Amino acid sequence: MSEKDLINWLRERLAKQPKSVLVGSGPDDCAIVDSSGIERLAITTDTILEGTHFSPDDSPEDIGWKAVAVNLSDLAASGCKPLWGVIGVGLQRGKGSAWAKKLAEGMFEAAEKYGLAITGGDTTSGTGPTSICVTVIGTPYGKAPLLRSGAKPGDVIAVTGHLGGSISGRHLRPIPRLLEIEKILEIANINACMDISDGVSLDLSRMMNESKCGALILEKLIPVSDDAQKLSASDGMPAVKHALNDGEDFELLFTIAEDSWSTLSGKWRECGYETAITRIGSVTEDTDILIELPDGSKTKLSPEGYLHEF
Amino acid sequence: MSEKDLINWLRERLAKQPKSVLVGSGPDDCAIVDSSGIERLAITTDTILEGTHFSPDDSPEDIGWKAVAVNLSDLAASGCKPLWGVIGVGLQRGKGSAWAKKLAEGMFEAAEKYGLAITGGDTTSGTGPTSICVTVIGTPYGKAPLLRSGAKPGDVIAVTGHLGGSISGRHLRPIPRLLEIEKILEIANINACMDISDGVSLDLSRMMNESKCGALILEKLIPVSDDAQKLSASDGMPAVKHALNDGEDFELLFTIAEDSWSTLSGKWRECGYETAITRIGSVTEDTDILIELPDGSKTKLSPEGYLHEF
Repeated sequence: MSEKDLINWLRERLAKQPKSVLVGSGPDDCAIVDSSGIERLAITTDTILEGTHFSPDDSPEDIGWKAVAVNLSDLAASGCKPLWGVIGVGLQRGKGSAWAKKLAEGMFEAAEKYGLAITGGDTTSGTGPTSICVTVIGTPYGKAPLLRSGAKPGDVIAVTGHLGGSISGRHLRPIPRLLEIEKILEIANINACMDISDGVSLDLSRMMNESKCGALILEKLIPVSDDAQKLSASDGMPAVKHALNDGEDFELLFTIAEDSWSTLSGKWRECGYETAITRIGSVTEDTDILIELPDGSKTKLSPEGYLHEF
Repeated sequence: MSEKDLINWLRERLAKQPKSVLVGSGPDDCAIVDSSGIERLAITTDTILEGTHFSPDDSPEDIGWKAVAVNLSDLAASGCKPLWGVIGVGLQRGKGSAWAKKLAEGMFEAAEKYGLAITGGDTTSGTGPTSICVTVIGTPYGKAPLLRSGAKPGDVIAVTGHLGGSISGRHLRPIPRLLEIEKILEIANINACMDISDGVSLDLSRMMNESKCGALILEKLIPVSDDAQKLSASDGMPAVKHALNDGEDFELLFTIAEDSWSTLSGKWRECGYETAITRIGSVTEDTDILIELPDGSKTKLSPEGYLHEF
């Protein structure tokens, strides 16, 4: 399949656009969208690479889903709803049309599920492993976007979902917590938010660094995923270590005032949402990041999440 | 240099932002920008790959410039001024900090020259050749964005600059024709526009296909670059063939009503702009794309520009 054939297929697939997309970039150099009345935009981009973020054996639908979903997770972390997205694919030459189409299908599936209009993109081919770069634009659900720097001493630290062991499969089908953050913001104000992409131990230290605060979390409160439990049974590492340090959970880590937490946790149960929200600790004035072990002793939490090295 | 060190350096470099950037995405999951009062946004993305669009021996500053400039060229083609951009880099592991910094410097150079605020990005590393994906957002200089589909029978077909032979060096330092399109739109309305990335013979056929028209261009009018002349002297291919078919000129191809062209070409000389604008032919009702040779005979212009194959 030539570039032209793939582009023609994509153009048909992209024909149904929401009203805000005035011109899709299929035929044109740029997509044109209607941004009237929108005061604030959130912009984010994420690149995923074959060999680093996915393997050549993963299903192209899953890879496509992941490429879009990790960006939607960044929007969720900023408390923003998805509007428009563009996709850049550097395809390994010889991947073939069937593969590229399935990749696109996975992307469209994630985009449509969460109301993102894919307005265009760029496909090119090269000799190296496939690289996929998705950029998304959104706007705050509430009045203001959420930042990492807003945590205040005394805040409750909470997370969505259950942590660890995403490598068993969840890492390819991450669920951006858009529905959850929209609902949370309907119920209460939160002070700081981010998504957990490199393990909560590392990401919590990043948030506290931005907020110039510290944290005390309780090991017994960490919501450990079933995947982390299973992994622990096979590799012998405590499941809670997986929950603290494994990458690619894409759950939300947020801080919220104590009284707002009472309101939120009370109403959350009533909502009947499947995704748990769990208090794991508190923000402290002191900038250390501590963890209280089950025996009651406290120790520094060393960030052991995934660090990329060039 | 770790990801953290590079990010810290980038954060300092990104600290000076125009007023519209409320939060750079350095520390946060998304950048937040002020879009109040902006009715239309143009969005485009381009990926460049090592081995396809640049070689490992090219200077990282040039590669960085190119990655940004090809996107700015798309904005120019749509008659839009740059606002915000984000960058995704999939760096080949082991490239090293000096290389990555120089790459970023080339990006900042292009961005600053043309008023683009780089609001953030994503750096990751992998085993394959380096891939660079830049996404830019702009807004029309005039009332409406320019499209490929607006050409009308009787329109003058014109190009900026001189064509062909970009491979001799210009392809790494393309000049987005933003200043030129802004000036052109101050003087006259134009009907259709695109940038010439895959050779004018191929790109003209794309524009006419979108506009459901044809074209007659005159070989003797094609503005042949010095690079194309030199290449011709060494490879024996006629220089005009290089001008018609070589990729990566990043000049603008546009159509304009005859009387508007008279106004534009008259005033253009007065402006004292260095970049030439040259009439190369006319839009026709019939959908064939023809070229008149120097002997007065007409023949179909076969699109011989660069086509990517998967």
